[in-house]
Amino acid sequence: MLVDLLIQARWIIPVEPESAIHEHASLVIDDGRIVDLLPTEQAVLQYQARNVEVLDQHALIPGLINCHTHAAMSLLRGIADDLHLMDWLQNHIWPAEQKWVSEAFVRDGTDLAIAEMLRCGTTCFNDMYFFPEIVAQQAIQHGIRANIGLIVFDFPTVWAENADAYLTKGLALHEQLRHETLISTSFAPHAPYTVSDGPLRNVITYADEMNLTVHMHLHETAHEVDEQKAKNGQTPLQRLHELGLLTPSFIAVHMTQLSSDDIRLYAETGGHIVHCPESNLKLASGFCPVAECLAAGINVALGTDGAASNNDLDMLSEMRTAALLGKGVAGDASAVSAVTALQMATINGAKALGLDAEIGSLAIGKAADVVAIDLSELETQPLFNPLAQIVYAAGRHQVSDVWVNGKQLLNKRQLKTLNLEELRQKVNVWRERLESR
Amino acid sequence: MLVDLLIQARWIIPVEPESAIHEHASLVIDDGRIVDLLPTEQAVLQYQARNVEVLDQHALIPGLINCHTHAAMSLLRGIADDLHLMDWLQNHIWPAEQKWVSEAFVRDGTDLAIAEMLRCGTTCFNDMYFFPEIVAQQAIQHGIRANIGLIVFDFPTVWAENADAYLTKGLALHEQLRHETLISTSFAPHAPYTVSDGPLRNVITYADEMNLTVHMHLHETAHEVDEQKAKNGQTPLQRLHELGLLTPSFIAVHMTQLSSDDIRLYAETGGHIVHCPESNLKLASGFCPVAECLAAGINVALGTDGAASNNDLDMLSEMRTAALLGKGVAGDASAVSAVTALQMATINGAKALGLDAEIGSLAIGKAADVVAIDLSELETQPLFNPLAQIVYAAGRHQVSDVWVNGKQLLNKRQLKTLNLEELRQKVNVWRERLESR
Repeated sequence: MLVDLLIQARWIIPVEPESAIHEHASLVIDDGRIVDLLPTEQAVLQYQARNVEVLDQHALIPGLINCHTHAAMSLLRGIADDLHLMDWLQNHIWPAEQKWVSEAFVRDGTDLAIAEMLRCGTTCFNDMYFFPEIVAQQAIQHGIRANIGLIVFDFPTVWAENADAYLTKGLALHEQLRHETLISTSFAPHAPYTVSDGPLRNVITYADEMNLTVHMHLHETAHEVDEQKAKNGQTPLQRLHELGLLTPSFIAVHMTQLSSDDIRLYAETGGHIVHCPESNLKLASGFCPVAECLAAGINVALGTDGAASNNDLDMLSEMRTAALLGKGVAGDASAVSAVTALQMATINGAKALGLDAEIGSLAIGKAADVVAIDLSELETQPLFNPLAQIVYAAGRHQVSDVWVNGKQLLNKRQLKTLNLEELRQKVNVWRERLESR
Repeated sequence: MLVDLLIQARWIIPVEPESAIHEHASLVIDDGRIVDLLPTEQAVLQYQARNVEVLDQHALIPGLINCHTHAAMSLLRGIADDLHLMDWLQNHIWPAEQKWVSEAFVRDGTDLAIAEMLRCGTTCFNDMYFFPEIVAQQAIQHGIRANIGLIVFDFPTVWAENADAYLTKGLALHEQLRHETLISTSFAPHAPYTVSDGPLRNVITYADEMNLTVHMHLHETAHEVDEQKAKNGQTPLQRLHELGLLTPSFIAVHMTQLSSDDIRLYAETGGHIVHCPESNLKLASGFCPVAECLAAGINVALGTDGAASNNDLDMLSEMRTAALLGKGVAGDASAVSAVTALQMATINGAKALGLDAEIGSLAIGKAADVVAIDLSELETQPLFNPLAQIVYAAGRHQVSDVWVNGKQLLNKRQLKTLNLEELRQKVNVWRERLESR
């Protein structure tokens, strides 16, 4: 049988079924889809391929899904560190955004983020930021998959003047993007403290009608929970539940402040959690009890948050931090294993976004979003288990090749759809502007 | 003036004075020592150099000091992960060590560790393992600086049959190494639960007489503290204090279980702490209250621990984890800043080892242990502050050049004193042996 691409790998880690590791196996790709996964010995007899990639020191994994980020904020990487959250936001991030965020800022910042994400094996990102139409446009242009947040605030920003306007613009954008292969959309009301009940009710109505997911910051800090409680005695979680927002289409980001009751309640709603361990640490927001949430049956995915509070978009290191911190917080060295961390960064992300029929594992019939990691470096030797080695020892510079929908976007560390030198120059112009603040 | 080496760098971060960052500056090195640090404009007029390195996109920092490791355990990297501490030790690590640890194991494992450490900018490591004479020999051979632990246990191991024999062999080794430029030695009684009062009293006597530091695991887990308390009501810290072991020459590793009283007591003794955040997380040992210890005036250094519980020897990522976790544990985003993390990984390590007159900062008169980090990669753009960028965004593959005592050991990512291919083959032989267990 003639196919587009045969990748012969030393290892293939499909994520589904859990813990499976195939050695000396091949992934067969045709028309953007995975059509087979079988021993290389058989593959070379059974398939003729227009392209053959021999990756004999590499592991193939599903493309990583960064389930929460603000891509364009990569232009604010390192602009202010080691500050209290409110000082950081009020005196640094918000003034810089107010002054500089524009279509051009979002275009160049998203390009920087896409380049960084592809170079660390991320093939899909869930974004929440201003000018989402620009984010979608850049994702399409560079061939990466994206779930675009249709943001909602109560108050005016550069993107819209009031809650109705956000929704109207969001609905129009959804309509415009609905037939794009690489793009899906979510409503993205920013947070409980920035969106009031009225607009949230509208979000519920539209999301239900249009079968869209809802992506929202929730229980990020103790301050957020305390403030809401002071208002009416409810936690933000309870308030959103009463409104009817918490369903299997709801994606709650951060969730660092959770009692056992909160966890039980949230598990019953079928909602998803996106854990952002590095951002939560850097902003001292608190610790998400990941092991407890997983044990309660909650689907927990993984995100980097924006590069201003991380300060990278590296999903490999985020998996590692999630596994390490998950053990520390649970007080149990067997909690949040390497297998679990890889699931969080792949199939769990796909489930949260409602895309698990398409992506999240190297299963036959799914889209060919594939990442190759070179494990021959000294730092990943000796190699007893390639999956554990990827989570606990590999660095992002070992990501050698990336395909999205069967199209190669990174080839031996070289980006195929972005001009690195041009991008570096644009980023430097932004640095000069931002420094002049 | 004619000198050996002039390094023209985009930035120089000397660590002393704190927070200083020189732009377009040069480091002048002669006879293995730093003889000047001045603007490059002046340097080229003032000095003639046999070698000139132009690193115009790089930051120079002092060589990183890995203040606690078991280098040879790099051969056990990833042999067993995600297990409870006692399962991990009793059913995996100790049996593997009992079967395989030998002079050859320590030689090859130490070489693997030295290669990894040099490739991530570590120029000095504080080791605790069997066959310390082999560790010293390999460090000397490859040109890296090492503080060699003269280990002590109550019970027999492959290295010695009883406490007296450990001490006798240790003293002989100290005598043999005392004139080596790159080598210093510490007594290294393993832990409170493996060394009894008698041998510890001997360590105190000899350490005092010979002016040596003492390097010991302490308060690593709640189990350790609870067991000691059950015996005589004392914490291990109180017991060692009563014995007279806690002095400004004492280096306590881990310290995850500390009450405010413990911190006050330990600060008064003048002892040092080596924080190993990634190992503490991976083994779910607990959280060292770093910000509180620093505020109490304790000198806190940084270590990776062995690669079996980390699973790397990457001091760049360890700095990052220390800064992030330190904020999370303190509940304060301004705690353990990037500046502090870099101090912990350099000058604080030097102070703990009693070597701060020689290393730990790029100060005139100190040994030229220098690391260059290339900050031009996309992942460290835009660049507002090179120090924060190194701690929060740079990866170890950006370490381009390393000098120890003025001798170049890494040149544009190439190791000068180790044969990588040969090493990889040796490591693979060990993998095959270990897998056959």
